[in-house]
Amino acid sequence: MADKNPIVPKLEKLGREVSEQIKKGENPYVSIPVRALSNVKFNKEKKTLSLGSQESKRYFVNVAHARKFMQTMLVSSFCKELVEHDIHASIREAYYSLKRNIAGTHENTFEEQGESDPIIVDLEVMLDILREQLHLNADRSGVAAGKVIISDRGDTIDWSKLGSGGWSVPSNVEDIKIKKVDAKFVLVVEKNATFDRLNEDRFWEKHDCILVGTHGQAARGTKRLIHNLHQKTNLPVYVFTDADAYGYYIYSVIKSGSINLAHASEEFATPSAKFIGLTMADIENYGLEKYTIRATDQDLKRTREMLKYPWFAAKEWQEELKTMVERKIKAEQEALASRHLKFVSEEYLPTKIKKKDFLP
Amino acid sequence: MADKNPIVPKLEKLGREVSEQIKKGENPYVSIPVRALSNVKFNKEKKTLSLGSQESKRYFVNVAHARKFMQTMLVSSFCKELVEHDIHASIREAYYSLKRNIAGTHENTFEEQGESDPIIVDLEVMLDILREQLHLNADRSGVAAGKVIISDRGDTIDWSKLGSGGWSVPSNVEDIKIKKVDAKFVLVVEKNATFDRLNEDRFWEKHDCILVGTHGQAARGTKRLIHNLHQKTNLPVYVFTDADAYGYYIYSVIKSGSINLAHASEEFATPSAKFIGLTMADIENYGLEKYTIRATDQDLKRTREMLKYPWFAAKEWQEELKTMVERKIKAEQEALASRHLKFVSEEYLPTKIKKKDFLP
Repeated sequence: MADKNPIVPKLEKLGREVSEQIKKGENPYVSIPVRALSNVKFNKEKKTLSLGSQESKRYFVNVAHARKFMQTMLVSSFCKELVEHDIHASIREAYYSLKRNIAGTHENTFEEQGESDPIIVDLEVMLDILREQLHLNADRSGVAAGKVIISDRGDTIDWSKLGSGGWSVPSNVEDIKIKKVDAKFVLVVEKNATFDRLNEDRFWEKHDCILVGTHGQAARGTKRLIHNLHQKTNLPVYVFTDADAYGYYIYSVIKSGSINLAHASEEFATPSAKFIGLTMADIENYGLEKYTIRATDQDLKRTREMLKYPWFAAKEWQEELKTMVERKIKAEQEALASRHLKFVSEEYLPTKIKKKDFLP
Repeated sequence: MADKNPIVPKLEKLGREVSEQIKKGENPYVSIPVRALSNVKFNKEKKTLSLGSQESKRYFVNVAHARKFMQTMLVSSFCKELVEHDIHASIREAYYSLKRNIAGTHENTFEEQGESDPIIVDLEVMLDILREQLHLNADRSGVAAGKVIISDRGDTIDWSKLGSGGWSVPSNVEDIKIKKVDAKFVLVVEKNATFDRLNEDRFWEKHDCILVGTHGQAARGTKRLIHNLHQKTNLPVYVFTDADAYGYYIYSVIKSGSINLAHASEEFATPSAKFIGLTMADIENYGLEKYTIRATDQDLKRTREMLKYPWFAAKEWQEELKTMVERKIKAEQEALASRHLKFVSEEYLPTKIKKKDFLP
């Protein structure tokens, strides 16, 4: 629980500041860093997205701000109780817990979750605290296996002894301790089917690694787990997705963070992560020409947008994305099964790792 | 592996029959039970959906059938290899494994997964074998915790010692052995957030139960796991969803099977399952009036359709669905958090179980 100590004082400081403003007869306010795209920067050195220095003030005595100010205080107070009582809530539970009629009015504190969610992000940004540290949980999605032993809520869990299932990655991994790691790298895979293939083939055992399945875009808990595994062990992280705009974006979010989470890149991103595949070059190198899929207009539009993102500015990525636009194709991880089912675990991945055939 | 023995002989019998037809100079065919709604029956006694006796024949020498006949043989042969080599494939890997050019033509064996998926179902129905037994896996989704010890791929896994994560339910649970159960009931919950709430509150420990999270509509692996847990232990199964058409349908599929899976209800359905909530009556009984959501036109349309399904014919369900249509509201599991966060685990569920306040 030692890690949580800074959280309550930060919340108390917020409350104290507001209460002192009131005592002085001032119009109480809170300062919130601006989260618009205009205030999002890409730090080339750190290779992560971050927020700039723009701030806005939210006042209590201001018809445009009063409701949000009240909501900010409610969410702050709720989080303080969660942390103090060591209980967690989903962001949806938080909404229901805080929704109520304001005595003597026809107004509710919150009308929909669309009102409480942004206040939670405001609080993260204002206090430089993750919502997970505030004991608020997002949805979970993700599975892990391999040569790691963790401890969590008093249980010691060996990820190499979980059969065909694996460990379901929770939404909140803040209290999880990584006890023992006997691996050479972390392999993150986009699809459940690929996780199942590699798990059945005991890839993590044969190649001494940790296998994490994201099931599409990685959930916050999964991104944080990958970040923490890397922080703790300094192991290389390889990301394996489909060769399409969606897959490449999954990779970039794991590596550099995302626009929505720019304020928390330091806690979620893994800037040294490398992209192991699939790439456009893999299609020829591994004989997948007949197993590609025609890119849709939507895919191509997305790929053209990504060409402009500074975090895809490396020449290898520019080339990759341009090739995709020119050839108008994409390819799935499972296309490797056209060679043979175990091709991905016996040939493709070991070869790419041996040759260090990665995109940056 | 003893369970798998009947699978290969069934596939071999199919091959032998076709080859004998050819030797006799007959037009080879296979007989496939019709899977249209017209051939789906609800068995009131068993409380499950099942297929009727209509069959169709698929001939090789028939321009309308030849392609599908060829595909049926390819999928059958692929599955025989999977089972014989004890290797599993996702249905997407199966498609890529079987897609190839037919020598001397411009035809491919399969053009898209939309061609191979129905053939897999044909095979399930023809041979009365689950695709899981044919070693073909669908996508996974689901998480489990509680007082159970299983064995899977040589690992012994105690679901009560998996921290905040839980065991990720794989797509294929055919080889999983339930070794020890120290529980009084199985509680199936629709939402991850509810799973997390009950897991954090250690509901399964305090009430000696098994907790299964479906994350929306239950995946095949999760349905089969619930079915197997019940078969093995005879424990009561309670299903907990939102009070809306989607939630009620999730329940009905777990209990009675679905139209698409009517041929396999005996293997997937749990006809004795009971619905624990949320119900329209809960809204008053537990003071949730201010926390309901207006039903959309889509919700109401779906609810009216469900009123006609024979598996919702019980008077309690007719009343429930009619109330929903009249009041035009729905409510979420998380609405219980409006009382207090642990209300669901300390009050709501224990009270409903004690009073046996279930829908059939």
